[in-house]
Amino acid sequence: MNGPEKQAQRKEGSYLIFAEAEQSSSPFLPSSATAMASASSAASLRLLRRPIGLAPLRPARRLLCVASPTAALATDGDSSPASSASMAQPAVVDVNPPRGTRDFPPEEMRLRSWLFDNFREVSRSMAFEEVDFPVLESEALFIRKAGEEITQQLYNFEDKGGRRVVLRPEITPSLARLVIKQGKSVSLPLKWFTIGQCWRYERMTRGRRREHYQWNMDIFGMPKVRAEAELIQAIVLLFERLGITSSDVGIRLSSRKVLQAVLDMYSVPQHLFTQVCVIVDKLGKLSREEIEKELISTGLSSEAVQGIIEVLSLKSLSKLEEVLGSGVEAVADLKKLFSLAEQYGYADWICFDASVVRGLAYYTGIVFEAFDREGELRAICGGGRYDRLLSTFGTEDVPACGFGFGDAVIVELLKEKGLLPDLPRQIDDIVFPLDEELEGPASSVASSLRKKGRSVDLVEDKRLKWVFKHAERINASRLILVGKSEWERGMVRVKILSTREEFEVKAGELQ
Amino acid sequence: MNGPEKQAQRKEGSYLIFAEAEQSSSPFLPSSATAMASASSAASLRLLRRPIGLAPLRPARRLLCVASPTAALATDGDSSPASSASMAQPAVVDVNPPRGTRDFPPEEMRLRSWLFDNFREVSRSMAFEEVDFPVLESEALFIRKAGEEITQQLYNFEDKGGRRVVLRPEITPSLARLVIKQGKSVSLPLKWFTIGQCWRYERMTRGRRREHYQWNMDIFGMPKVRAEAELIQAIVLLFERLGITSSDVGIRLSSRKVLQAVLDMYSVPQHLFTQVCVIVDKLGKLSREEIEKELISTGLSSEAVQGIIEVLSLKSLSKLEEVLGSGVEAVADLKKLFSLAEQYGYADWICFDASVVRGLAYYTGIVFEAFDREGELRAICGGGRYDRLLSTFGTEDVPACGFGFGDAVIVELLKEKGLLPDLPRQIDDIVFPLDEELEGPASSVASSLRKKGRSVDLVEDKRLKWVFKHAERINASRLILVGKSEWERGMVRVKILSTREEFEVKAGELQ
Repeated sequence: MNGPEKQAQRKEGSYLIFAEAEQSSSPFLPSSATAMASASSAASLRLLRRPIGLAPLRPARRLLCVASPTAALATDGDSSPASSASMAQPAVVDVNPPRGTRDFPPEEMRLRSWLFDNFREVSRSMAFEEVDFPVLESEALFIRKAGEEITQQLYNFEDKGGRRVVLRPEITPSLARLVIKQGKSVSLPLKWFTIGQCWRYERMTRGRRREHYQWNMDIFGMPKVRAEAELIQAIVLLFERLGITSSDVGIRLSSRKVLQAVLDMYSVPQHLFTQVCVIVDKLGKLSREEIEKELISTGLSSEAVQGIIEVLSLKSLSKLEEVLGSGVEAVADLKKLFSLAEQYGYADWICFDASVVRGLAYYTGIVFEAFDREGELRAICGGGRYDRLLSTFGTEDVPACGFGFGDAVIVELLKEKGLLPDLPRQIDDIVFPLDEELEGPASSVASSLRKKGRSVDLVEDKRLKWVFKHAERINASRLILVGKSEWERGMVRVKILSTREEFEVKAGELQ
Repeated sequence: MNGPEKQAQRKEGSYLIFAEAEQSSSPFLPSSATAMASASSAASLRLLRRPIGLAPLRPARRLLCVASPTAALATDGDSSPASSASMAQPAVVDVNPPRGTRDFPPEEMRLRSWLFDNFREVSRSMAFEEVDFPVLESEALFIRKAGEEITQQLYNFEDKGGRRVVLRPEITPSLARLVIKQGKSVSLPLKWFTIGQCWRYERMTRGRRREHYQWNMDIFGMPKVRAEAELIQAIVLLFERLGITSSDVGIRLSSRKVLQAVLDMYSVPQHLFTQVCVIVDKLGKLSREEIEKELISTGLSSEAVQGIIEVLSLKSLSKLEEVLGSGVEAVADLKKLFSLAEQYGYADWICFDASVVRGLAYYTGIVFEAFDREGELRAICGGGRYDRLLSTFGTEDVPACGFGFGDAVIVELLKEKGLLPDLPRQIDDIVFPLDEELEGPASSVASSLRKKGRSVDLVEDKRLKWVFKHAERINASRLILVGKSEWERGMVRVKILSTREEFEVKAGELQ
């Protein structure tokens, strides 16, 4: 350990240990003796100080933060660096993942897999192909100047080679990058989906995480609103699979061409378009006055600002047509989309709402977002057309549109609606030797069942009572007991756990 | 743009553009006109300089690096920071993912999914539960002092809050962290698996990547070699599923208790154990002389060093027993494991090899690795027992053992053995309206088939000839043509592509 580090340790003499509250006999309790014995390695672990009594984002079960007798209860500003352990004290590592991130223990992993399987199943039914990208990307892909929240919260850093890299905040730029890279080897239209983790760095507020998983579906090379219509069907199919109805959730949609038309009416220069969109998207978060002020500061006339605000309040397509005239693209696109929606059979899910603009700089046409009709949650998913993204990467544009669908809000909604599935652990067989000397035969029984495709939990060194409880807990179908007298006759005892039926089978004939 | 950045741009006036070699008419070709039009946004993208003519790790298809007329062909040392584009020139983003990382276009994603499905299927048959962790972890979890390669190549950095974080190099410490966190809420033994991306940062050499995916299976709370026997069965089941036999691959195994016994014979102090293991693991990479020198420098006597080297060359268990005596744990463990292997039926896959030590500091007992018998590749997977990891985290130890199985070497092996599966794209139906005005009916036909669970590619604005070619390319089962005269009778035309059978069906009765 070098000088400054050692010094830092002395200075930061306080630390917290994490222990299980009800667990004085637990194998997991910090033990001074053990920790001392391994002091040399333990001391090399830095400890993170944690606020006491402040609920973690995802509270660890029955976990208690215990301060060491000498610990000063410093509150942990998000910007305080990690402190180090002093060599003399038992060092206990922080059992929580980095702030704002999640572990997935088995039951939460089952829920995630179930959700992702649904994403995949819908994508498959829409004939989309799965792709993936590194979670680490060049910062250059995400640097845009429109003042988006997403680019202000980049989880970026410099790698050891001096390159600016970023834990990606979204996946669309990577998709676009790969489309360019694949070039002529693919035929358009491309229909790709991906499920990946996205990151942001912001000061933590309660309930906001620094990572989430996002399902993305994107179509490249389809200029017509057919692409949007397909993407919206995918979203609706997903909701339907999860048991969500159109009275739970709606999809608001509009087009950025609406704003474009208004800007054209007031002769606002083209280069202000993106910036205006990003500002206007904050309606609802900021007050109307603040939005107006921001718009004025871009150089818009107050007439233009009023025109924008008025149009954004429109909730009917016919009213929009009245204001903009029927000749504008925005109106034609939206009308076509609504007419397709009738044919797909999801018209009751969608509604026009001119206030939908979405916060990403690169959208150019139709934009949409799904929302819970009770209005309790943030947008469930959002997307739109981005026909001019590729030219910002220096290549010729390809018409494109897509959406991102996070794993957080949908789970909240399912919870609220009582639609979270029951996903217990499930095992086919438990194999249990009744005697230690039968561990060999038990191995061969378990092995052959596994080769036949069954999931087999081989249990040893437990009481039979424990095994029965365990069987219940993991929803085992059968219990296979390997006993001495049976084995001598080449038999094992099988118990069907649902019916309590019990019988002997030749070990070799076990299916 | 601030001062220094602007300056950097002037200094780094050269850049490279990436273009498709054979693609002068491609929609992806950089177009000066387009790029100029979007100069304001394009200019905000930084460009990465790339070496010219140096093959990328995973070469982009038909991709050519073209220097701008004024570009100096600087070779890109790994440590050169990204340079910026000048406003006046068409800026083309680097289409490659960050160095040493991979994109997964559809065909590579299908291969990855196939492999991961096999990992999952084997884990399920072994009754393991899936878990997951953030790819970003606290650096503290991975700081160990034994001089391991893995901790010398940490992809670490400081986050904006001043915390030392790391893109995890391995998953075991996260597993251990979660075991501690779950505490009493879980009953032992725990059998967990995970598939996740791991990272390292090192200067790039050809063919070495900075990330790979790793399948981990771990058992906590099982002190006997039964745990190792189970893990090795999992590995063998995986190989068998992939078509690999015991004449292609073997699993070498030994125990760190062998080294422990030798160190005890020479009264080497206990605290040197880990360090000795990490040094000895480099046998094969470093010369015998270098290894001896490193061992001596830890303070070992030359007799002890000779004793270690001699024991490590043993390839038979009976010889080992001769040297160490039958009373030592190492011998008893290994004998038990070989006897269990007979019962499981995988004895022909495994062999004793005292030189197997593995490079991770925390192993304490049995260690093993799978290798191709032709000796061409690095280890395919590796693992072992780590009974004392938890105490380095400050809690009481729980016996544990596990393995990591990467996604790289196994794919090389499958390629070599001709065992890579053919994984074409596969779609149930293509729906194609023969007329633009039939886009509505086509929507409703596609929609209803998708609701029935079929995967449906809705194709428009193409010639029928293209559609047939497309059907072949994506292995569609049926082509459903929506034509005017049929639709007026409520019918669609169905073509079964394998048999070329063709018939009409009522649209509502299409299954």
